[in-house]
Amino acid sequence: MSDTGVTVKKSTDFSEWYVEVVLRAELADYAPVKGCMIIRPDAYAVWEKIQEIVNQKIKATGHKNTYFPMFIPEAFLKKEAEHFEGFTPEVAWITQGGDTPLEEKLAIRPTSETIMYSMYAKWIRSWRDLPLKINQWCNIVRWETKATKLFLRTREFLWQEGHTAHATAEESEAEVMWAINMYKDIIENTLAIPVLIGTKSESEKFAGAMYTTALESIMPDGKALQMGTSHNLGQHFAKVFDVKYVGEDKMDHYVWQTSWGITTRLIGAMIMVHGDDKGLIMPPKVAPTQIVIVPIPFKGQDAEAIAAKTSEIAETLKVNGLSVILDDRQEYTPGWKFNQWELKGVPIRIELGPRDFKNSQVVMVRRDTGQKTMVKEADILTSIENLLKDIQDNMLTKARLILQEKTSSVKNYDEFKQVIEGKGGFIKASWCGNPDCEEKIKEETSATIRVIPFEKEEPPTGCVCCGEKGKTIAYFARSY
Amino acid sequence: MSDTGVTVKKSTDFSEWYVEVVLRAELADYAPVKGCMIIRPDAYAVWEKIQEIVNQKIKATGHKNTYFPMFIPEAFLKKEAEHFEGFTPEVAWITQGGDTPLEEKLAIRPTSETIMYSMYAKWIRSWRDLPLKINQWCNIVRWETKATKLFLRTREFLWQEGHTAHATAEESEAEVMWAINMYKDIIENTLAIPVLIGTKSESEKFAGAMYTTALESIMPDGKALQMGTSHNLGQHFAKVFDVKYVGEDKMDHYVWQTSWGITTRLIGAMIMVHGDDKGLIMPPKVAPTQIVIVPIPFKGQDAEAIAAKTSEIAETLKVNGLSVILDDRQEYTPGWKFNQWELKGVPIRIELGPRDFKNSQVVMVRRDTGQKTMVKEADILTSIENLLKDIQDNMLTKARLILQEKTSSVKNYDEFKQVIEGKGGFIKASWCGNPDCEEKIKEETSATIRVIPFEKEEPPTGCVCCGEKGKTIAYFARSY
Repeated sequence: MSDTGVTVKKSTDFSEWYVEVVLRAELADYAPVKGCMIIRPDAYAVWEKIQEIVNQKIKATGHKNTYFPMFIPEAFLKKEAEHFEGFTPEVAWITQGGDTPLEEKLAIRPTSETIMYSMYAKWIRSWRDLPLKINQWCNIVRWETKATKLFLRTREFLWQEGHTAHATAEESEAEVMWAINMYKDIIENTLAIPVLIGTKSESEKFAGAMYTTALESIMPDGKALQMGTSHNLGQHFAKVFDVKYVGEDKMDHYVWQTSWGITTRLIGAMIMVHGDDKGLIMPPKVAPTQIVIVPIPFKGQDAEAIAAKTSEIAETLKVNGLSVILDDRQEYTPGWKFNQWELKGVPIRIELGPRDFKNSQVVMVRRDTGQKTMVKEADILTSIENLLKDIQDNMLTKARLILQEKTSSVKNYDEFKQVIEGKGGFIKASWCGNPDCEEKIKEETSATIRVIPFEKEEPPTGCVCCGEKGKTIAYFARSY
Repeated sequence: MSDTGVTVKKSTDFSEWYVEVVLRAELADYAPVKGCMIIRPDAYAVWEKIQEIVNQKIKATGHKNTYFPMFIPEAFLKKEAEHFEGFTPEVAWITQGGDTPLEEKLAIRPTSETIMYSMYAKWIRSWRDLPLKINQWCNIVRWETKATKLFLRTREFLWQEGHTAHATAEESEAEVMWAINMYKDIIENTLAIPVLIGTKSESEKFAGAMYTTALESIMPDGKALQMGTSHNLGQHFAKVFDVKYVGEDKMDHYVWQTSWGITTRLIGAMIMVHGDDKGLIMPPKVAPTQIVIVPIPFKGQDAEAIAAKTSEIAETLKVNGLSVILDDRQEYTPGWKFNQWELKGVPIRIELGPRDFKNSQVVMVRRDTGQKTMVKEADILTSIENLLKDIQDNMLTKARLILQEKTSSVKNYDEFKQVIEGKGGFIKASWCGNPDCEEKIKEETSATIRVIPFEKEEPPTGCVCCGEKGKTIAYFARSY
């Protein structure tokens, strides 16, 4: 544990603040290999919570976990042309096993469509085998040439990838929407990060997909972050990997496929959105430690009684399923401990000193607002439960306000450029649907279309770029 | 689902039987990349159960999960000479990222000591940082040149690796023993596979360890299988990676380290030990499906009532935390279903036909013995709970008998060779401790020392090889 807190203000140098919080709160560290990171216990525990919740939701709906090899023959990647073009520039290649050069070099999976579907072709025979709904949790490698950033962009990261095959186009469409809405639910109600959802434009879709849906959120520096995607692959991969089934009509049909994923990047978003100048703020639902208890013996007064009482409180909370640390280390002062646990973002701190002890009460401090309250000993459990819920809700509400504040509607290109150069964030604007306008905007402002919302809304103006008839509303932003 | 059962008897061609069971019960499939496999849902579910139990035990004792990069710079592997020599022959190397050759080739982790301890050197400062107890679940690559075998030996596999650092030699020794006993408990009481535990000889220890402890079990073909290891690394790695702490005495000390792991190989052992000519037998504690319910409507008689009743039973069992499949598919006969679920090793089958329905009872069939009993509807839950426990116990008892039957004590080298060429299995014999004898035995019989038991026992004879004074008892076997 570093002895020092965060030295940079979030509002002054957001990028530096982020790195400091990640490193000093011991969420991650730079690995000795360029572009890679180590996910340390407190961050990995957040990932485990995400895994638990996702697993629950996917298993309840008949998806099954599995594990495919991470090696993909080059020939497989090449089968779907767009897919190959999209991924090969950032593939890491194995060319040697032991002392022996390999006959065919092997890609480390940048995503698993190709290796999985080569097996789906073998496993799927008839309509009885459908839908096939498979998921895997694994590591992924994309040899980034852009600057990397802890959690947000590293050469290796962890993710979950769902891959389903269906008998009909309708079923695959329903699956795509099911996945994107499952993610929205988890990201908003667990990580307390509000998202926009919608479709990607043609130029931003997944390489090989028919269309891509995505979740996007806005970071405090005004840049958008893609939080997850759910792709409708149509029959693109089915045709190149020959994934067919015999229908009840006794005829051969290609399957309809989807794939969808979220990554450890979500942890980075959580840090960025919620942290403050003191460090991290963990949403209670994913916090590895929800409550820290700090005994405050004053000059030895009642020291033993206070120790016994804090142990007792810790035990009660644990028995009730809460994750608690009793920080009774002698070698640190209470003030030092307060700073440390604030840096680590523990949602609730309980303090107990001699006067509290005499009054059968504790001091409860919430991390998100810093608010202190006196709580009678008998009410601790109820107060904690309410407070955790309140903190979780408050964090989402706060984040929603930021999203709202960072979303601007513009009528023309001048306004667009002004906002992009100014506060940034999402820009809601009309778009004619022409990729040339999208490309021009990207070149001139670095902003891209993040999503085209699912709910159709009449474009209130002409295209923000060319002025021609608006075909749809789109959300633009600069992004990570 | 394959339409055919296992065509080879376990006793006739064990090796072929194993492959058939694995493929036909859909536990795994060969991957398109040589030496790799796909872990399919029913086998992955077993792995998830193992993960759940291991996580519970390691977290309760203060170990924390984490994730380190899978890329290891060549220079790191080289630091510990024995370690490098032991692992480089089977390392897969990344030499290219996108179109660009890498400046330094990167190993894919064959194990993570080196990358982890390079970070421990940075994280550990004082005695306050100890013990450091970290674990990770990940994929591992060892570029096997020997023939691979589903689950037992593949070029990529999944494992868990614990890595701890301690202030004293005593603490690290205690950790080594804690880990090996934790594994013994899980393997015996969850997978129902009895194991021998003990120390490896110098020539069989982990490359870079001070000593290695291991769990070994015997397969039905008489070959031993290493089920897990727990290494005392002493200060070997601490010295080359400079992992030091300032003690309470204000002096610098090297830490004492351990590492320990189990792999997806355990699933292979479970299949081999418990399966029979009908297929797999899943220990109830890890079975992805514990109970299958098959309604048996006879010529449509009472069809609706039977359907309603079986649904009701399935629901009751589910609510009570059991994993149940109600197989009410119309397109298959009951007999076909029986075969299918026997192939898949589901511990209990419940049948319900018109006569059972009238008598308010069901037929319950246990997979391990094939025994059928009539159970009154009101007693189903209690019977199931007792039966699952009984099956679990019976499987371990049966396996213990096999272990016993396959363990021979021999007095001299002639007997040794006779047993090895005959029934195989473990051979308990006296050994003088000289590596030359160990080497000679290996060359002449292909048997190696699997473990030297922890409990010291006076060798009853001279060394089984040279006849000189026996120094210890050792268990020899041919192994996978």
